[in-house]
Amino acid sequence: MIPIHTGILILGSEVLSGAVCEKNAPFLLGKFQDLGMPVRTQIVAGDSREEILEALSFLCRTCDLVVMTGGLGPTFDDLTRSCLAEFSGFPLRFRAREFERVKGRYAGRRKFLPALRAEMCFPEGAMVFANDWGMAPGFGVRCSGKWIVALPGVPEEARAIFERKVIPFLKKVFRISALPGLLTVKVLGLTELEILAKLGKDFPPRNPLISCGIYPGGGEVHLRMRIHGENRQGILREVNRWKKFFKTRLKTFLADFSDRPFEELLICRLKGARKTLAACESVTGGWISKRLTDIPGASGAFRGSLVTYTDFAKRSAAGVDRETLLRHGAVSGPVAARMAESARVKFSSDWGLGITGLAGPSSAGSGHPVGTVFIAVAGRRKTEVKKFCFKGVREKVRLRASQEALRMVWEALGHGKNQGVSCG
Amino acid sequence: MIPIHTGILILGSEVLSGAVCEKNAPFLLGKFQDLGMPVRTQIVAGDSREEILEALSFLCRTCDLVVMTGGLGPTFDDLTRSCLAEFSGFPLRFRAREFERVKGRYAGRRKFLPALRAEMCFPEGAMVFANDWGMAPGFGVRCSGKWIVALPGVPEEARAIFERKVIPFLKKVFRISALPGLLTVKVLGLTELEILAKLGKDFPPRNPLISCGIYPGGGEVHLRMRIHGENRQGILREVNRWKKFFKTRLKTFLADFSDRPFEELLICRLKGARKTLAACESVTGGWISKRLTDIPGASGAFRGSLVTYTDFAKRSAAGVDRETLLRHGAVSGPVAARMAESARVKFSSDWGLGITGLAGPSSAGSGHPVGTVFIAVAGRRKTEVKKFCFKGVREKVRLRASQEALRMVWEALGHGKNQGVSCG
Repeated sequence: MIPIHTGILILGSEVLSGAVCEKNAPFLLGKFQDLGMPVRTQIVAGDSREEILEALSFLCRTCDLVVMTGGLGPTFDDLTRSCLAEFSGFPLRFRAREFERVKGRYAGRRKFLPALRAEMCFPEGAMVFANDWGMAPGFGVRCSGKWIVALPGVPEEARAIFERKVIPFLKKVFRISALPGLLTVKVLGLTELEILAKLGKDFPPRNPLISCGIYPGGGEVHLRMRIHGENRQGILREVNRWKKFFKTRLKTFLADFSDRPFEELLICRLKGARKTLAACESVTGGWISKRLTDIPGASGAFRGSLVTYTDFAKRSAAGVDRETLLRHGAVSGPVAARMAESARVKFSSDWGLGITGLAGPSSAGSGHPVGTVFIAVAGRRKTEVKKFCFKGVREKVRLRASQEALRMVWEALGHGKNQGVSCG
Repeated sequence: MIPIHTGILILGSEVLSGAVCEKNAPFLLGKFQDLGMPVRTQIVAGDSREEILEALSFLCRTCDLVVMTGGLGPTFDDLTRSCLAEFSGFPLRFRAREFERVKGRYAGRRKFLPALRAEMCFPEGAMVFANDWGMAPGFGVRCSGKWIVALPGVPEEARAIFERKVIPFLKKVFRISALPGLLTVKVLGLTELEILAKLGKDFPPRNPLISCGIYPGGGEVHLRMRIHGENRQGILREVNRWKKFFKTRLKTFLADFSDRPFEELLICRLKGARKTLAACESVTGGWISKRLTDIPGASGAFRGSLVTYTDFAKRSAAGVDRETLLRHGAVSGPVAARMAESARVKFSSDWGLGITGLAGPSSAGSGHPVGTVFIAVAGRRKTEVKKFCFKGVREKVRLRASQEALRMVWEALGHGKNQGVSCG
């Protein structure tokens, strides 16, 4: 397959002013990667005719396809339609059929009709991508051998139109017979270098049809493989071969072949084992509970948590005794252990987590450096305590602490066979 | 002042592959807005000589200044130095003085020295911006009347160098005598339209030296004003005049003249009033506690929280009686009130928060639609309960619920005079 170069053009002065966080580019970048159509250049340009035309000619010089978002509304600063008419040389034409198709949706709201009418004008011969999720449709224009696709700026509409209408269109015009196979490998408990050591010489593969990336972050490592091929069967066979490879080499460190968040895997795993979890958090201040309850249906495995952010709360709510606190200090293994045990008892859960530490910025005379965290997992038979020294700012320390705590539960559950998580 | 057009060039194939979230562009966009140097175009280009040179010539055609990030490391795909040498026509020269200045930092780590040496080569005549936070320094080259500034890709390093070294440099070379005055107005409890109604005809001002933006999000609205002028005194006078205007018109809805997160304002306010808070969370699952403990020193005002994610936990940990649960259901005003009172008692705090609701996706036969949330604030004398119906997906419902809960505490504390929060 000849690589198809893609360009992305994001319109919007409000993006350039730094006032809003742009969401269409990250989405499109990922999608084109999955389609095997690497993005060569991405431009953000202001809402002016001159800047839009400049950016379009720059992108069309080097790319086979340009996808742009924004500027499809009905107001004076929505210039995409007229700019594309000028750029392609095809004048704007009102499409009565498209108008009739959606007019009914605005029955009783007559004041919308002039705007709707303006949004149903497209360069002559354009391919229209109906917008079932909002007002302005997207469209594609062919222009000196290149395709330019325009999408609305509203992220939900841009995504829906791209996935349902544009992808099938691109597969047809660019004759993409088989989409590349995607393999995501989520690894827990190993660093990037340790993973590479375990995978050995066979990884990364020297096969030019396979591209790989390794992305560490937040205590997890993701490996991503894109496998190209002539047909679906061949690609699937190759994907399965690699799955087997990763299972054999990474053993219990392989968490999942998916992008599902770790919290979801853990909740599934707990449910599968019919076990429940509760926590008592100090340094993470509720973040662990928040992460677990991000997952719908978490209550089937996560019972609740005590956030004991002061010594007083550790005593009164978690029942840590005064002597332990005085002798060892709030940031200590024995206090973490009591917290874990107390969570387990208070919520009658199978497992209890206890986390205490110092996230900084100041270490407040505790005798420990900022980043010191004690994590305990209490089970029916024993309580395991680990000490960590995390580096970085407050937020990073808290995030790493929550991640390691969840990972300790994962390990406690795993009994050395955390492969093949089957759930949902 | 003649507007100075700025271009931003972000290098990195990993950004284009959609694998990492780009952080330098949003930072630079905001900074240039504050400097009164609007960004005209932003480009993301891959790590190839051809693409970098193409993007540079495109940007230099239309901009007076180009700031680029990334590609300053010592490996084969770090091409910024050599591309800028080629583009400007100034050959790379090793700068012994810069090398000697930082060599000491790598004493005992000899293997770093060749990389360090490579990173101390700059186009002849370049202005070097020392990197006190990492390895590769930034630099600026003047090239046919335009300035090109290169910064490392690591966000922390790029930010620090830009703020401490590049801004003073730009102020000098572009003769920026007075930076525009910035006024951020944080408003709580009013919608965008309600704010505009209260501000009346005087807002937005018709003065061409003042630019304004209004940005709603997450239950808060931010107004941002940029006030240009000839000198510092005049700008300051104007800023103060507008502060007075907003105070008079927005009264108790004006939360702060700053970008400080709401959680921080609330903690400050609680500390100022020598009051403490505790919570009992169900639907928000710990998010409120997490948000409050994001703020260093939160323990001075926030005592802790109970996360009672199951009915069992509501009974056993929060002491909600079986009868109330059975008669009203877990998602109800009386249960929220009991939770708030229980938090207040358990943690001996002045105020207690109770939150129960349905975040979805399924409503699980509770008789309420997804998005129903009851929030209670318990004080010494009374407990106030409010019912909300939030729209949107699970995450949005949970975020809005946590925001409204914190805002209820804010209101309970405010007694109609929440102006002039003075703290830190």
